[in-house]
Amino acid sequence: MKKLVFGIDIGGTNTAFGLVDEVGEIFGEAAISTRKYTHFDDYPRYIEDLATAMKALVNSLDINFELVGIGVGAPNANYYKGTVEIPSNMWKYTDEQIAAGMKEEDRMFNFADDLGKHFPGTPIYITNDANAATIGEMVYGGAKGMKNFIMITLGTGVGSGFVANGEMIYGHDGFAGEFGHVVVERGGRQCGCGRKGCLEAYTSAGGIKRTAFELLATMTDPSPIREYSFDQLESAMLSKFALEGDPIAKECFRLTGQKLGYALADAVTITSPEAIFLFGGLAKAGNLIFDPIKHYMEENMLITFKNKVKVLPSELQNKNAAILGAAALVWQAK
Amino acid sequence: MKKLVFGIDIGGTNTAFGLVDEVGEIFGEAAISTRKYTHFDDYPRYIEDLATAMKALVNSLDINFELVGIGVGAPNANYYKGTVEIPSNMWKYTDEQIAAGMKEEDRMFNFADDLGKHFPGTPIYITNDANAATIGEMVYGGAKGMKNFIMITLGTGVGSGFVANGEMIYGHDGFAGEFGHVVVERGGRQCGCGRKGCLEAYTSAGGIKRTAFELLATMTDPSPIREYSFDQLESAMLSKFALEGDPIAKECFRLTGQKLGYALADAVTITSPEAIFLFGGLAKAGNLIFDPIKHYMEENMLITFKNKVKVLPSELQNKNAAILGAAALVWQAK
Repeated sequence: MKKLVFGIDIGGTNTAFGLVDEVGEIFGEAAISTRKYTHFDDYPRYIEDLATAMKALVNSLDINFELVGIGVGAPNANYYKGTVEIPSNMWKYTDEQIAAGMKEEDRMFNFADDLGKHFPGTPIYITNDANAATIGEMVYGGAKGMKNFIMITLGTGVGSGFVANGEMIYGHDGFAGEFGHVVVERGGRQCGCGRKGCLEAYTSAGGIKRTAFELLATMTDPSPIREYSFDQLESAMLSKFALEGDPIAKECFRLTGQKLGYALADAVTITSPEAIFLFGGLAKAGNLIFDPIKHYMEENMLITFKNKVKVLPSELQNKNAAILGAAALVWQAK
Repeated sequence: MKKLVFGIDIGGTNTAFGLVDEVGEIFGEAAISTRKYTHFDDYPRYIEDLATAMKALVNSLDINFELVGIGVGAPNANYYKGTVEIPSNMWKYTDEQIAAGMKEEDRMFNFADDLGKHFPGTPIYITNDANAATIGEMVYGGAKGMKNFIMITLGTGVGSGFVANGEMIYGHDGFAGEFGHVVVERGGRQCGCGRKGCLEAYTSAGGIKRTAFELLATMTDPSPIREYSFDQLESAMLSKFALEGDPIAKECFRLTGQKLGYALADAVTITSPEAIFLFGGLAKAGNLIFDPIKHYMEENMLITFKNKVKVLPSELQNKNAAILGAAALVWQAK
């Protein structure tokens, strides 16, 4: 009988899921809202509704199959414990709960156990979104057959997954791979994590926009960017402007690639990967971002590693990467 | 029958070796000179003489044992290929050979194969000195039972070994773990690797000495350090001066610990270790160096990892760590 797994991608807005086979074909997809379940007390109903929607998808399919596992990608998920811990935009305490003494740092959800009650006997694996993307690349994408590689996800945040000896590095506590929070500029830009100078503050979608506004101050060239407020400008516009020749937009990509290139040269000294994959909005900018990354990475590379490490776009870029990544978690664990 | 392995530590001056059992007891040690075999053409004779000395040690022992493997720690050793590649102080080309067109970058020695001819059927494992120390810590030292940890060796150079999922990270090419060459000060001090600002240029034995001389310029305090020339001052003197209250020596340790602490906070975001072990001369300075390392590491730690990661002295510090580490390579591979 055909074997399928559920891949579930829990985002702040929606929870999307699909049934996926071993070669990455998706046999049906659906989604429920995540945002609708804002509060801590909504969480049990969220689990109920998710399980119901998943079973509805199963029943809607025309094929016979065996469900061999469920893989989940979620923010702040802990692979070892099966938990989602203090997710910033989901299942939050109300003001009353906080006033009654409930503490943010205790907000933890036994996601794997709770969903598991609806699928008895089916193994559930959970990890954060960037790790899921990494395993997706390893099982279905360009990292197939690679034992040592790095995945960098460039989106609203900067995430990463490090694979060594053919295994995902989860680390002692299950939270390894926070490459967006290596400090690349001591005392630099304020980061969402509360510290200063993290890679994420420079190379996320918001980071490159911050660079654009910094350059509006330091450069004098006329630029279409000058017509937008900070709130109006979207980071995707910068590729368009750069391709049209705007010097400020071009400089944005050079500086962003420089920060990433420097940081990647340091990461290479630690894990010596065969390749580095880039995924997410910024990675879609093609040569605009790949060229400066490669240039500054090689310029700063320890001689041992020079001209050895490939920098490649994710091969899941235009596919349903989040669902595939979550599904891959199951196949990888088998 | 008792099972023993050879642990061989190839240093620039001497090659020391010993027969070691599974719990780290050494059943006899000896050494030959490395320095005597300066030239490329001396290498075959070096292998002959080493094998002869090893066999002499075997014959000198009173016990019956089975030799189950040979582990080797050597500079620039490649674990996958069994080679020693372009070692800087050993088996060098003569000026005549260079004039005749022999190229430094081709200088590679098939160490495992060449020594193996003298011990047919005995498996030989080889890795660089810092990786050997790391495996020594895992098999015989404080990292016993740990699946995720980092070892930092602070000596003439700064080396490292990263362990994740219970396995040494050798990386794609066998050269992973060059943490001494992450850049901690962009455009900073000249490093022996030809680049600028590497951790090694600040936190090796030579690095802390360079900091002392920088401080002789920036501070005005009287200090016993002012009585020494750069060539005279040994880094070990700085601990003594700091313990006696010398403000410049104390500031040396604070700054060195700061550089290490910052760099370690970044490393933690990548591999999320249970513990970080420090080994080597500088690690012997105790609280003088551990206190600032811990302080600056925690101050710069991403909240996810705060107050979770232990910083510990190597438990092999005062033992024959290099031989034990090389021997551990065999037990670890079994």
